[in-house]
Amino acid sequence: MDTAAPLPPASTVPADSTPVGTPLFSRIRLAAPSDVPHVHNLIHQMAVFENLSHVCSTTESDLSANLFTSPPFQSFTIFILEVSPKPFPENSPHNSNLNYIPVVRILNSDHPVDDPDREIFKSEDENVVVAGFALFFPNFPANTGRPGLFLEAIFVRKCYRRKGFGKMLLSAVAKQAVKMNYCEVFWVVLNRNVNAIRFYEDMGAQMLPEWRICRLAGDALQLHENDN
Amino acid sequence: MDTAAPLPPASTVPADSTPVGTPLFSRIRLAAPSDVPHVHNLIHQMAVFENLSHVCSTTESDLSANLFTSPPFQSFTIFILEVSPKPFPENSPHNSNLNYIPVVRILNSDHPVDDPDREIFKSEDENVVVAGFALFFPNFPANTGRPGLFLEAIFVRKCYRRKGFGKMLLSAVAKQAVKMNYCEVFWVVLNRNVNAIRFYEDMGAQMLPEWRICRLAGDALQLHENDN
Repeated sequence: MDTAAPLPPASTVPADSTPVGTPLFSRIRLAAPSDVPHVHNLIHQMAVFENLSHVCSTTESDLSANLFTSPPFQSFTIFILEVSPKPFPENSPHNSNLNYIPVVRILNSDHPVDDPDREIFKSEDENVVVAGFALFFPNFPANTGRPGLFLEAIFVRKCYRRKGFGKMLLSAVAKQAVKMNYCEVFWVVLNRNVNAIRFYEDMGAQMLPEWRICRLAGDALQLHENDN
Repeated sequence: MDTAAPLPPASTVPADSTPVGTPLFSRIRLAAPSDVPHVHNLIHQMAVFENLSHVCSTTESDLSANLFTSPPFQSFTIFILEVSPKPFPENSPHNSNLNYIPVVRILNSDHPVDDPDREIFKSEDENVVVAGFALFFPNFPANTGRPGLFLEAIFVRKCYRRKGFGKMLLSAVAKQAVKMNYCEVFWVVLNRNVNAIRFYEDMGAQMLPEWRICRLAGDALQLHENDN
């Protein structure tokens, strides 16, 4: 398993050192169809965070109909970030997913995380809670002639922020792109989200300020139904 | 076949009317692997047009390796725009492609088009020349929960511009999105390309000026190879 412990778990801290807090086990794994309710809730929390809840119409049945229709990484793909106060069970079915070996890290929190939505985001494995996600799919930058990954969404729930989980998720996507010999990870960000932009630049991303987004949707799209 | 003749072909114009010029038959069809040399040339012409030729490294072998690996519309997909001074042959193999019925239009040019690259862009069918392309693939806007189409590239060769071919290509992509019950067509444009922006807005597209592009590529991406 691909593991790393940037801080030692509490049990390995010598008795005479300052206590470093509560261990928090974290895992990134591929989403499964049973995660649809969590993905649905995460998307709506993300929309609230971005002040875009008025345009968020995603339903669980839309997600069930449109996700998991292709093998992972070939089309729409989701990484789920989970946390647990205890080690993840070794017999977790996610460990036997041949498409992706979960990434596991242990960090030490100053305090146990007070998660008001713990019940909503309970995962299948005992004690495990879903804390965030990344949604991505292959793109094809014409100027490279090689695929990349378009990162549509990356989100960590509020009570789990500032712990390195955003970096862990983006790293997992970037690492997957490198593994597949893809040329880039590409995404868009609200220009008012200066914290996110600083974080992305710290991760090595380049902002392309001279490009703008265009979108043809809703009635304006439907009008093209009868174009010739 | 899905045809339309917004202007009557020359032969149907009454003898006493003003001559309307030279008929130019145009067709949009799905690209085939044999189009790779044309797609390669079109991508490089587009890069020159966008002053981005210094970052265009696309090769024919990259395109051959990465395109046509999935059924059309499920992943990277290309529409080819072709023109001909004569009607397209009815027995063209492109007419029997069950994935997409070609769109054919006839327009009347004031003058025959002087195409300096006619030999380079000769198509398989007699008298037919490749004039442009659109490259797109499915995206998945999280806030809709339904797929859309990401339009990566749309390009008409210089001598065929200002004849409505850009509109014909974008319409074909939009129509395909509607047909598949997809929620949007999404793309990016250089903010200095004011002509393109005006054209897109005329087509019903909305600019989203508050979003910026981020990209993690090259050495900055490779650095994530060993992330945990």
